[in-house]
Amino acid sequence: MRLASDTRTKLVRTALRSMHRTSFENVGVAQITEKARIPKGSFYYWFPSKEALGAEVIDAFAETGHKLRAQLLVADGRAPLQRLRDYFDHVIGLLESQDFETGCLLGAMSLEMAGRSELMRERLSQAFERWQGTLRDVLFEAASQNALPHDLDPSDAAAFILNAWEGALLRMKAEPSPQPLHVFMRSIFEQYLRCSES
Amino acid sequence: MRLASDTRTKLVRTALRSMHRTSFENVGVAQITEKARIPKGSFYYWFPSKEALGAEVIDAFAETGHKLRAQLLVADGRAPLQRLRDYFDHVIGLLESQDFETGCLLGAMSLEMAGRSELMRERLSQAFERWQGTLRDVLFEAASQNALPHDLDPSDAAAFILNAWEGALLRMKAEPSPQPLHVFMRSIFEQYLRCSES
Repeated sequence: MRLASDTRTKLVRTALRSMHRTSFENVGVAQITEKARIPKGSFYYWFPSKEALGAEVIDAFAETGHKLRAQLLVADGRAPLQRLRDYFDHVIGLLESQDFETGCLLGAMSLEMAGRSELMRERLSQAFERWQGTLRDVLFEAASQNALPHDLDPSDAAAFILNAWEGALLRMKAEPSPQPLHVFMRSIFEQYLRCSES
Repeated sequence: MRLASDTRTKLVRTALRSMHRTSFENVGVAQITEKARIPKGSFYYWFPSKEALGAEVIDAFAETGHKLRAQLLVADGRAPLQRLRDYFDHVIGLLESQDFETGCLLGAMSLEMAGRSELMRERLSQAFERWQGTLRDVLFEAASQNALPHDLDPSDAAAFILNAWEGALLRMKAEPSPQPLHVFMRSIFEQYLRCSES
């Protein structure tokens, strides 16, 4: 039972690493089983389809991000917007350690697969909503401390910040350069959230 | 000569339509030549590789967008920020007419191919830079009329707005819903550019 579960997890992790580096379509079942050192024929014992594996890859990536946010955004005495800033700075540090060559698997999968797989699209939508919920909580906390512009809706802001972050990561890949991430930080914190004025 | 040029254009247009609907990798050379009603064997007479075709698909998509912006953002008596708002509203209308199922080919290609094809990445980078330049011109015009917040840098704003737009389109695909586009409009014009205060 333990071994069985290990095999499944290994397939998801191997697929995640490969798909994050390239794309869903670029990575074949044979490539995944070979890298995971699992007989190719056994793949369909674990997953009904490559699409089903893709859905679990999305869940696994989302779960890692959620744990990181739970850890970095927890109320610990720092002001809510300071925690938000520290969280994005931390992720920029992670991206830097990967030479700005990776990015967000959720974003890449959205543009590649959301229009073609309802199963994968639903998982992407759920992952974004959960992420957005975490940001929303921090922004409502900031609003309750009068640390947000009075006319800013925290729910709107959570969606906007998440989507703008995805856009910054997209542009980072096209350049390739961390510049879009720095523009994001200045634009969100100094202009949009008007931190210096709060 | 005319026929020859027509064939090449036909291949680019056919590839653009198919790749815009799915992805670069999803569309094979055989599929493109079949749809364009051109013998498969002649493809490599026109393009040294599928990657070279991909680069021209990017250029063709970028050129269409550039012409649209030249037309919609031209100084015609409307205030610069009004032109900017009208431009995004117009594109949202176009996306609506396609049931919010398409999006931006430049964004999709960036996440799918920028890390794997230097040729395509360069074209994507150039296309974004040209687009950003058009937005920058409008924002500098607004700044010269004191229509921007005094501490907003028009160059930063052009990059941020373009990238945030790409992020909104990405999220639109994941939902699928126009909601991220409406959040973008409110967040950019009312909060970030503070249009109501200008």
